[in-house]
Amino acid sequence: MFVLDPQLEADTLHVTDMRLCTVRLMNDANYPWAILVPQRQGMADLIDLTPADRATLALEVDSVSSALKSLTGCHKLNVAALGNVVRQLHVHVIARFEHDAAWPAPVWGKVAARAYDNGLGEMLANDLAKAVAVRRA
Amino acid sequence: MFVLDPQLEADTLHVTDMRLCTVRLMNDANYPWAILVPQRQGMADLIDLTPADRATLALEVDSVSSALKSLTGCHKLNVAALGNVVRQLHVHVIARFEHDAAWPAPVWGKVAARAYDNGLGEMLANDLAKAVAVRRA
Repeated sequence: MFVLDPQLEADTLHVTDMRLCTVRLMNDANYPWAILVPQRQGMADLIDLTPADRATLALEVDSVSSALKSLTGCHKLNVAALGNVVRQLHVHVIARFEHDAAWPAPVWGKVAARAYDNGLGEMLANDLAKAVAVRRA
Repeated sequence: MFVLDPQLEADTLHVTDMRLCTVRLMNDANYPWAILVPQRQGMADLIDLTPADRATLALEVDSVSSALKSLTGCHKLNVAALGNVVRQLHVHVIARFEHDAAWPAPVWGKVAARAYDNGLGEMLANDLAKAVAVRRA
C-alpha cells in the first residue's frame, strides 16, 4: 500500500493523480515546481521501479514537463530524482527562468521557500492539473 | 551532426558510447559522477527528444545507474537533467555516499571539483564502461 511521505505531503499541494504518479505542487512561489511520486511503496531510486513502471514514469514526467512549460513559458526545465533527505522516490520538475531566485544554480538550498498566498498555489495546481489532462487526452 | 559541448568535453573523461548516448565521467574525485549526452544536435530539455529517443535515454540512464551502483556500493543515486549553464541536453548520474563532500545536499556548487590524479579517472571510466557492457549483454 502506498502512503505519501509526510514531509512531501506537508511541503506540497495536490495537483492530480496519473496512472503511476501522484502529482504535487511545491508550496514555494519562487518557482513553479511539480513533484511526481510513483505510487509504489518502498522505492528510493529510479532503478528500483519495474521496467514497466519506469517507462510509465518517463511518460508522466514528460507530460507534466510539457504542461508546466506551456503554462509558464519557462526558459528551461530542471528534472531531477535526488532523494538524499526524503527517501521516498520522487521526481522534481521545475520551471526555471533566467530571472528566478536561484538562476543559473539548481534551486536546492538557495533561497528559503516562500509559501503561496491568497489561494494562488491552489489556482496554479488546478491550472497544472488541467494542462496535464489536455496532454493525456 | 552531433558535437559534444566543449565545456562538457573539458570537464569529463570518455567512458563508452551507447546506442543513443555518449557516456562521460566527470573529472571530479569528490563523487563517482557519470554524464549521459544523447548524441542529437540542438536538444536542451528531455521533452525535446523524440518519444523513441526518450525511451532509449531512460534505459541507458538506468544501465549506467545500475553499473555505477554495483561498482561503487553507493548509498543513493542522484539523477538529474538541469542544463541551466551548459544547454546541451545531458543527464547527471551521481553515486552519493552519506559521508561525501556535499551530503545530503545536491553536489552542484558545494565544493570545488577535485581532478583525479595518477590515472585513477581513466581506471574508473574503464571499470564503468565494462560494468555498463555487462548490463547491456
